[in-house]
Amino acid sequence: MLIVDGLQYSNWSREIFEQMREGGVNAVHATLVYHETTRDTLSRLGEWNRRFETHRDLIMPVREAADIQRAQEAGKVGIFLGAQNCSPIEDDIDMVAIMRDLGLLIMQLTYNNQSLLACGCYEAQDSGITRFGRQVIKEMNRVGMVIDMSHSAERSTLEAIELSERPVIISHANPAAWQPAKRNKSDKVLKAIAECDGLLGFSAYPFHLKNGPDCTLEDYCDMIAATADLMGIEHIGIGTDLCQNQPVSILEWMRNGRWSKEMDYGEGSKDNAGWPRPLPWLKDSRDFPNLVTGLRARGFAEDEVARIMGRNWVELLERTITPQV
Amino acid sequence: MLIVDGLQYSNWSREIFEQMREGGVNAVHATLVYHETTRDTLSRLGEWNRRFETHRDLIMPVREAADIQRAQEAGKVGIFLGAQNCSPIEDDIDMVAIMRDLGLLIMQLTYNNQSLLACGCYEAQDSGITRFGRQVIKEMNRVGMVIDMSHSAERSTLEAIELSERPVIISHANPAAWQPAKRNKSDKVLKAIAECDGLLGFSAYPFHLKNGPDCTLEDYCDMIAATADLMGIEHIGIGTDLCQNQPVSILEWMRNGRWSKEMDYGEGSKDNAGWPRPLPWLKDSRDFPNLVTGLRARGFAEDEVARIMGRNWVELLERTITPQV
Repeated sequence: MLIVDGLQYSNWSREIFEQMREGGVNAVHATLVYHETTRDTLSRLGEWNRRFETHRDLIMPVREAADIQRAQEAGKVGIFLGAQNCSPIEDDIDMVAIMRDLGLLIMQLTYNNQSLLACGCYEAQDSGITRFGRQVIKEMNRVGMVIDMSHSAERSTLEAIELSERPVIISHANPAAWQPAKRNKSDKVLKAIAECDGLLGFSAYPFHLKNGPDCTLEDYCDMIAATADLMGIEHIGIGTDLCQNQPVSILEWMRNGRWSKEMDYGEGSKDNAGWPRPLPWLKDSRDFPNLVTGLRARGFAEDEVARIMGRNWVELLERTITPQV
Repeated sequence: MLIVDGLQYSNWSREIFEQMREGGVNAVHATLVYHETTRDTLSRLGEWNRRFETHRDLIMPVREAADIQRAQEAGKVGIFLGAQNCSPIEDDIDMVAIMRDLGLLIMQLTYNNQSLLACGCYEAQDSGITRFGRQVIKEMNRVGMVIDMSHSAERSTLEAIELSERPVIISHANPAAWQPAKRNKSDKVLKAIAECDGLLGFSAYPFHLKNGPDCTLEDYCDMIAATADLMGIEHIGIGTDLCQNQPVSILEWMRNGRWSKEMDYGEGSKDNAGWPRPLPWLKDSRDFPNLVTGLRARGFAEDEVARIMGRNWVELLERTITPQV
C-alpha cells in the first residue's frame, strides 16, 4: 500500500526521515514556508537541496506525481513542497511560475490573516478573492500549482473553488460538524471541494480533533467514515499536520509572524499557549500503520483504505500539477 | 502666505524644484513609493538624500511641522515624504517605527487594491481593517505617522477613522457628490474626516474633476466652497496630485505594479490609457498663485485662503506627527 501524508512541518532531521520510512510513508507534503518572503523562500529551498543531497539514500524530491511511485520503488520517501501562505510571491504575479519552476507544487492563498489574495480564517470579515487573487488563481492553474485553502475563510474558499479551473484542496483540516474549530470546514465547503474533484486531508493536530489530544483512533476513523459519505471516497486523504521536535518559539512564529506586537495565541489561549500533547496513536511517522489498522477496523474495504492512505493524493497531483500548454 | 501642496509625484529635477519656489510653494508632500518593498523604499530614501544634498539651496527635508516655517524663512521648499501604499512595511509591524525614523511621515493603508491592512477603492468588496491593520494603525498613532486613506475603499476608511486615536487624512481626492469617481469620497467619509480633526487635500488630477481636463478654476473653487461648508474651513487643503514629466510607463506601473498580467487602466480605459491633459490653470507649481486668485474671487476671506493654501496642512502635521511618549 502506498502511503502519503498531506502535511508535515517538522524540525527536519535524518531521524525524522528514518521514521517516515519505518512507518511505510512513501511521500510527504512538507511545508516549505509560512511567512517567508521571496528571497527567504529561496533560502528554504536551498536548505531542502542540501537535505536531498545529504540524505539521498532516504529522501528524494517529488516533481511530478509519478515520482511518488518511483520513491516507493527506490525505498525512499518522496518530498513534495508547499507553502502555507502566499508570501513567496509577495506582490509579484511572475513569482508564481518562478516558484513552480523551483518545485513549489502547492500554495495556500492565505495563512489565518488577510493576504493580498484572499481572506484567512481568523479575520472577522471575509470579502473573498481580491483582484490580485483572481490573477494568481489563473496563473496557478496555468503552471500547475495546487491551490490549498486550509487556513482560508469560507467565502474566500468558495470563491477560489468557483474561479479555479482545476481542483482546489484543503491539505489539512477536519469537518467543523465533527469538531467546531475555526480551522475546520463547513459541510458546504467540503462538498464544494468534492465537486471540484479536489481533496481534503484529515488533520491529526489535536486542536482540530474532538476531545483534543484525547481523541481516540476510533473517533478519528468514525469521522473519516462520515466524511467519506459526504465527499466521496475519492476526495479524502491524510494530512496529519505533524510538527515534530519544534520548539514553542516556532509555534509563536507561525501564529505571530512579524505582524503582531501583542502575542496571538492562534488556536490556543494564554493558558494553553504551547504545543498540544501528541496523540498516543500518532506520535510520529512510525505510527502510520495504526491508521491503516483503524480504517480496516472501521470497516473500510482494502481498496478504500488504499485510497485514503495515499492513492487519492497521488491522483490529485496527477490532475493538478501538470503545467497547461 | 504659506503654501503647501499635499501631494505630488513628479519626475523630480532641479527645474521642478525651481518651479515650486517660483510658484511660492513652501512645502510639498512628495510621494516616496507606490509599490516598493522595504528594501526598495530604502533606495528611494537614498535618492532623496542625494537630492537634498545636490539641491540644498532649493529644497530641505521636513521632519517636523515647524520645518515648513523654517523652509519659508530660508527661501527653500520643504519636502515631506509619504507612501501611497503600505508596501514599505511589508508584513512587519516593526517597520512602521523604522520608516518613521527615516522620515516617512505619511502612509496610505492601501493603493487601489486589497493590502495586508485594508481594502482599496478598486476592489469589488471591502471587509474593512484587517487584524494586522489594527496593529499598524495603533503603531502609526504611537510613532506619529499620518494615516492617509486616499486610495482606500469606504468601509476601510470609516473603520480606520474609528480605530485611530489621531486624525486621519485624505491627502488627494475630491467629493464624489461633485464628481462621481471611484477615487472621490462620499459626504459620509468627508464628514468623518472632519470629525476626527483630519484633512482633505483637493486633487487637481483631471480624472477627479468635473469635466476632466476642461474643469475651470471657477468650478474647482465652487467645489472647494461647498466642501468648506460640509467639512469646516479647518479641514481642507490642497493635494494637487501633480505628476510632471512622467512617462506613460510610470502611469502603467502605478496601475499594475507587479500584480497584473493583463493591463489595468485604473481611472482611464483602453481608449484613454495615457496621462490626462494638464489643466490650463495648473500646469505646474508656478501656477499656485492662480489658486489664490481663484479662491479670493470665489469670496473666501484672506484668512480662509491662507488656511486652504497651507496653514491647515501645517496644523494637521502639528497634531499628528509628534511621536507619543
